[in-house]
Amino acid sequence: MAEIASTISQRLESGELIAAIAQDFETNEVLMLAWMNLESFSKSVESKQATYWSRSRDSLWRKGESSGNFQEIQAIYYDCDSDAILLKVKQIGVACHTGERSCFHNLVELT
Amino acid sequence: MAEIASTISQRLESGELIAAIAQDFETNEVLMLAWMNLESFSKSVESKQATYWSRSRDSLWRKGESSGNFQEIQAIYYDCDSDAILLKVKQIGVACHTGERSCFHNLVELT
Repeated sequence: MAEIASTISQRLESGELIAAIAQDFETNEVLMLAWMNLESFSKSVESKQATYWSRSRDSLWRKGESSGNFQEIQAIYYDCDSDAILLKVKQIGVACHTGERSCFHNLVELT
Repeated sequence: MAEIASTISQRLESGELIAAIAQDFETNEVLMLAWMNLESFSKSVESKQATYWSRSRDSLWRKGESSGNFQEIQAIYYDCDSDAILLKVKQIGVACHTGERSCFHNLVELT
């Protein structure tokens, strides 16, 4: 983890979960938001396959391991206060379990 | 709040904070990630100005209120499990307090 800025590695090493946004590296479409702990972040960096921490299953979750809809990481960014991560990914298939490409497919009606 | 899907309004009404991604509505650049509670979400919908809940200050925070860098909301989406929000915004000035356009300007070196 030597390459990682100390602020974000400190947060992860303290056991914090950090929000991770997956974005299509070509179209910039936002695909989903999930969570990372230290283990999932390290796996993502090493394997270049998006790997999250499932809060509902309380377990490591390589995106696509059951669906085949893997996310191949092209780049990883983190934000100015080191509490959010942005993954630029090549999305295999679709991101959402509903079959939609993006999980953000519900529009709020603005009056 | 009648227009809002019951799942996300239920989460907000229970006092939950929900992650909100701000994305440039034209370029799709991801600008920042912040948090919303029921009050900030309602204000955002009513005013069409991005309004978050500051976890550090424990207070409502209309983006740009001190910097002038407002975010004019063009559309709001929420995700398939209703625990994340995506704002499509017209960003006035820059999003990041550092002067960068996006808060996600730190690149993780992949080996």
